[in-house]
Amino acid sequence: MDTATEPLESRIRASFARQSMLATLKATLDEVAEGRCVISAPLLPETRQQHGAGHAGATFTLVDTAAGYAALTLIPPGTEVMTAEMKINLLSPAIGDRLIATGEVVRAGRRLIVVRGEVVAEEAGRTRTIAIVQGTMIPVDPPAGA
Amino acid sequence: MDTATEPLESRIRASFARQSMLATLKATLDEVAEGRCVISAPLLPETRQQHGAGHAGATFTLVDTAAGYAALTLIPPGTEVMTAEMKINLLSPAIGDRLIATGEVVRAGRRLIVVRGEVVAEEAGRTRTIAIVQGTMIPVDPPAGA
Amino acid sequence: MDTATEPLESRIRASFARQSMLATLKATLDEVAEGRCVISAPLLPETRQQHGAGHAGATFTLVDTAAGYAALTLIPPGTEVMTAEMKINLLSPAIGDRLIATGEVVRAGRRLIVVRGEVVAEEAGRTRTIAIVQGTMIPVDPPAGA
Amino acid sequence: MDTATEPLESRIRASFARQSMLATLKATLDEVAEGRCVISAPLLPETRQQHGAGHAGATFTLVDTAAGYAALTLIPPGTEVMTAEMKINLLSPAIGDRLIATGEVVRAGRRLIVVRGEVVAEEAGRTRTIAIVQGTMIPVDPPAGA
Repeated sequence: MDTATEPLESRIRASFARQSMLATLKATLDEVAEGRCVISAPLLPETRQQHGAGHAGATFTLVDTAAGYAALTLIPPGTEVMTAEMKINLLSPAIGDRLIATGEVVRAGRRLIVVRGEVVAEEAGRTRTIAIVQGTMIPVDPPAGA
Repeated sequence: MDTATEPLESRIRASFARQSMLATLKATLDEVAEGRCVISAPLLPETRQQHGAGHAGATFTLVDTAAGYAALTLIPPGTEVMTAEMKINLLSPAIGDRLIATGEVVRAGRRLIVVRGEVVAEEAGRTRTIAIVQGTMIPVDPPAGA
Repeated sequence: MDTATEPLESRIRASFARQSMLATLKATLDEVAEGRCVISAPLLPETRQQHGAGHAGATFTLVDTAAGYAALTLIPPGTEVMTAEMKINLLSPAIGDRLIATGEVVRAGRRLIVVRGEVVAEEAGRTRTIAIVQGTMIPVDPPAGA
Repeated sequence: MDTATEPLESRIRASFARQSMLATLKATLDEVAEGRCVISAPLLPETRQQHGAGHAGATFTLVDTAAGYAALTLIPPGTEVMTAEMKINLLSPAIGDRLIATGEVVRAGRRLIVVRGEVVAEEAGRTRTIAIVQGTMIPVDPPAGA
């Protein structure tokens, strides 16, 4: 199927599946809606910092990716997005069973897509916000041959 | 040896070795100096984004960690640091053989340590800056029992 | 009245009145609630950029101040706050009659207060979001003699 | 003279002169070079925060403008720049006689120009860094009729 006509969620799932970093984090794509995407992952033994909490880099990866796919839902088919910049505030250590990252589009311009996101840690059914982000995605042509 | 009297580089190497996320990225601690730290890692097959470049999350992980250890060199022994916030601008795709992340302290206050950093990608002996960061570390007491 | 026992809104109004920068912008303090503050100002002839829109610096000033007072509502009386860092994304030019800046606390910790905010431009009764921010306030002791 | 052929510094001086916000701050354009711009201003009675230091909004205005003109030096004549986003870390209160803001281009791409900057406060001939920034400028067509 041509990428330009393939339904949005299928395109995003196919793109998600090509990201080996997300497989390394055992991340799953949990929700895709217009201007919104949710990705989650377990807190793995292999993505910890020195005190056993999840590494900020794993938290960043999840929410940056969720924000990127949120942006992708609002641009023309056949175009990709890239993170131009992202700012993360870490509110609490990443402790618990699972991290759930939500990305949302604040403003989708032709040249810049401004996004926000948050990450919650889930532990025994309770959640706690551990990070918030604000950043900018830009639409890019897919690499030649992709 | 007590952490408070252990030489700085040994303490940082021991802390680095406890971060499973860095082992997952096959990162190495290449340089520790006062207010400065260099960490590098190969561009691995398992940390890619959908077009085969390194994932922004891996780039972030390396430079956030380098900035954190740069901050750690300037605070009292027995204290740890945590990232309060970090802002990354991605300048070019992470393509090449190896990523080299440098973190440096701009201002070490009693309560906040302001840092900057950059990541270069090395390919066939040439380097290209792919990301810059600016952020804030805070000194924290080590977790009880650590 | 002692600053430590003076009601919150009175303290914030008194502080606001001491900021000559806000008088220069003809800003008004429109709302103070727990963890939230709204400040607005007309788009003045004397705070423009080169094409006649409001200068980003005026937009920043309003929302940084609103975020600071939002933080102040959640810390012990007698303590002040200072902006440690603030990140602004500008979404649209500041065009219209009036700018309305809202600051809100996302997480009030003992050492760091993480805030978000937005600025809307009002024109002929319609509003449009022109900027969003995410940043960090820190509690500080008032300067000696203050 | 046509803006597209007018020498760079003249164009920037003319643009600077149209920004009423900079006149309000009594700012001067002190240096323009390729990828670099320096702007300074006295610490005025009318741009203070509640304790008499310079307001963060004035500091932001100066360095945002310096970074914008630094970017402008590297784009085609006849094009303008706009701040897409800017992140400021405030290191010390703005105390002294004069603020000197320097903006520099880190990477000038076709669509995004990544910048850094700093502000120093000068007091009795000594300087102290009070703020650093990192952000993104975008080239834009001048408004119709400009």
